Amino acid sequence: MPKNSDAPPSLAIQDGRIRATYWIETPFPLEDAVAVLAGEQSCGTFTRLPGETDALRAAASAVVERLTPLDSVAQPSLPMRSLPSRLGPHPRYQRAEIEISWPFDNLGASLPNLMATVAGNLFELREFSGLRLLDLRLPPSFAQAYPGPQFGISGTRALLGLQGRPLIGTIIKPSVGLSPAATVSLVRQLADAGIDFIKDDELQGNGPHNRLRDRVDAVMPVLKKHAQRTGHQVMYAFNITDELDTMLHNHDYVRAAGGNCVMVTVASVGLPALVHLRKHSQLAIHGHRAGWGLYSRSPHIGMEYAAYQQFWRLAGVDHLHVNGLRNKFSEPDASVIRSAQACTRPMFAPPYPGCEVMPVFSSGQTAEQVADTYQALGSTDLIYCCGGGIMGHPGGVPQGVLSLQEAWEAAVRGVDLEVHAQTHPALAQAIAAFRS
Amino acid sequence: MPKNSDAPPSLAIQDGRIRATYWIETPFPLEDAVAVLAGEQSCGTFTRLPGETDALRAAASAVVERLTPLDSVAQPSLPMRSLPSRLGPHPRYQRAEIEISWPFDNLGASLPNLMATVAGNLFELREFSGLRLLDLRLPPSFAQAYPGPQFGISGTRALLGLQGRPLIGTIIKPSVGLSPAATVSLVRQLADAGIDFIKDDELQGNGPHNRLRDRVDAVMPVLKKHAQRTGHQVMYAFNITDELDTMLHNHDYVRAAGGNCVMVTVASVGLPALVHLRKHSQLAIHGHRAGWGLYSRSPHIGMEYAAYQQFWRLAGVDHLHVNGLRNKFSEPDASVIRSAQACTRPMFAPPYPGCEVMPVFSSGQTAEQVADTYQALGSTDLIYCCGGGIMGHPGGVPQGVLSLQEAWEAAVRGVDLEVHAQTHPALAQAIAAFRS
Repeated sequence: MPKNSDAPPSLAIQDGRIRATYWIETPFPLEDAVAVLAGEQSCGTFTRLPGETDALRAAASAVVERLTPLDSVAQPSLPMRSLPSRLGPHPRYQRAEIEISWPFDNLGASLPNLMATVAGNLFELREFSGLRLLDLRLPPSFAQAYPGPQFGISGTRALLGLQGRPLIGTIIKPSVGLSPAATVSLVRQLADAGIDFIKDDELQGNGPHNRLRDRVDAVMPVLKKHAQRTGHQVMYAFNITDELDTMLHNHDYVRAAGGNCVMVTVASVGLPALVHLRKHSQLAIHGHRAGWGLYSRSPHIGMEYAAYQQFWRLAGVDHLHVNGLRNKFSEPDASVIRSAQACTRPMFAPPYPGCEVMPVFSSGQTAEQVADTYQALGSTDLIYCCGGGIMGHPGGVPQGVLSLQEAWEAAVRGVDLEVHAQTHPALAQAIAAFRS
Repeated sequence: MPKNSDAPPSLAIQDGRIRATYWIETPFPLEDAVAVLAGEQSCGTFTRLPGETDALRAAASAVVERLTPLDSVAQPSLPMRSLPSRLGPHPRYQRAEIEISWPFDNLGASLPNLMATVAGNLFELREFSGLRLLDLRLPPSFAQAYPGPQFGISGTRALLGLQGRPLIGTIIKPSVGLSPAATVSLVRQLADAGIDFIKDDELQGNGPHNRLRDRVDAVMPVLKKHAQRTGHQVMYAFNITDELDTMLHNHDYVRAAGGNCVMVTVASVGLPALVHLRKHSQLAIHGHRAGWGLYSRSPHIGMEYAAYQQFWRLAGVDHLHVNGLRNKFSEPDASVIRSAQACTRPMFAPPYPGCEVMPVFSSGQTAEQVADTYQALGSTDLIYCCGGGIMGHPGGVPQGVLSLQEAWEAAVRGVDLEVHAQTHPALAQAIAAFRS
């Protein structure tokens, strides 16, 4: 298993090189295997080619900055092609953490080309029986070239006039299949209950049964009237994930209707389309990470969120999903907290922008995980989304939302959840209903 | 290990549903685990929610069309959170192949939303200790909504006036670090040697040391003069992978200079940007799959190329990389051939376009793998790229290219390589140099 606890913080560096750390496993001598990786991902292969002069190598080579051996195992973690006989019949598979650096000039400040450099063909190299990208440190040229989040944490708070606690949020469920009319009846209930944030499910895009425009037409008048009546602004993240022109048009449609947020599934739209949307956008961009399991489920291949989320922050999302404690998925709690911390850690040192974004907690969340979440993060700068934790509350949606506000109030004040529940019946009901 | 040999062919279906097959592994009762997957990726979760009416379920549910149990194992292939005690202390982890179908109306003909549906949050589900997307069958609405390849196999051949044999190609090496002037001196040699296809490395984008425009300015006059002098048209795939506006401008620049092909790393640019480029493009689009190892290295998480490549074909690439036999990466030969066959298998039945694209063989290829490649595919509809197989030929670039032409001539005629080599010295030299 990769160990990340002592990985260096992802702060910008000033020497202009691009740096990435990896966890690797290989039956080959470590130095040889790492040299292959550095060569494949920069100017050369292991064999020197015609044209590969000393000057070219000096200018363009990737450099192995650090090589820290870890444990070794008797079996390869991932299948390999047959090994050369010089490794003997029973080679050990040595693990290590390595740092590789690249000259900025190899690619310039281009996120798509950065992806091909730090997370491209290297995962397939036959020298490795395991390879994970752990973290990334980019020179400030990337901060200059890319927009980063337009609203981020403080801008999102400003849009809602909300301080001192997280945004309490929910996801419209059933995920897909509701009509716009059924959606808005749920939205009305949620707004009346005092919810801060509502989002479409990532499966609810722009299908014929519930088109984005029809949903906007149904939802926005209700939220606008609610704000006029109560002064309470709700953020609704309309899922505009789609082809580029449709996304831009639908962004404009949401904005014209008075909306404040659009959502995209980042892996589905990709970096250039997100950057294009960000430059065009006047709304907060809510980043969903559906498909993240492809990178995270195996301990032996893939990427840590510490690296992955940097691409999307620079490209311009304002919020990013991080799962939640004791979630319904397979991700361990430590990984969830590490991901949330990564989202709020500055990518660059001043005077460059840190590109901090709001982590979005979601999946099986109720009042029960609030204290642990706050304790782990020491911050309320997050969106806390509950489905069953609101809809499944015995007192219905209003008590569901209230129980979450109360749980966060207790956490921030340092009051024990049970003690707070003694004088807060919505919270007491939530504990009784959701404690397993 | 997932078994795909008996997977159904990816032909279009007419009932309007979207179909995906998966390999799964789970310690839970198979039917329960699969119901969770189908529920999570459509209208509901395992618990029925308010608003989830029978009519909604009938209209929007994903359906388990097939569930074929395979073997079982004693240990989970991927880490899981703790299991419920009802599964006992030593559950078996049952494997199966399943087919899930979705109503078209859940999402409409949208590739980004299709990605979130068939390859979204399901990989993280705690019910599974393994999950791979094997194949995909899309209704013809996708063929109507998306452009597909503009040139494909026949269009690429027409651009070069080349029939009856593969495009013999190469990649400019060193991958990165060459100046435009050094690049063009290599290009001149390659063109004079009779090469059909040259591509930039996926690491060579638009960095300050070798800007795309400078490369075009250097390369295109040489290739144009070569074509005028010899009548032999060379295809050069300029890597324009970048942010959207830069990609479009650089496409236009290549076209204005008389180029015939641009290259993008598909995972780096994403679906909407590729579709946008395709609609704008007048050149063949060469699709590089750097990063594919993330999906393919683990037998227990990820995606088969049979599914993955369909997204990029519909989005509009004309060529797609498939690695090569006995490659320098970790991919087994059977997987390479399966990938190449997938690229040329029609995605839709007539009257809809099949969206066939040209598979690109690359990585450690020489004259040595030609006969096996032809035997496995029974076709010359491919691009056969060699680096060392050309540059490392003892007779230099001209003899390197010639040896590959001779090897393909032998394969197509059904002549044994060694027999052909007796009268073809370039081929004989290649065999002597590259046979390990």
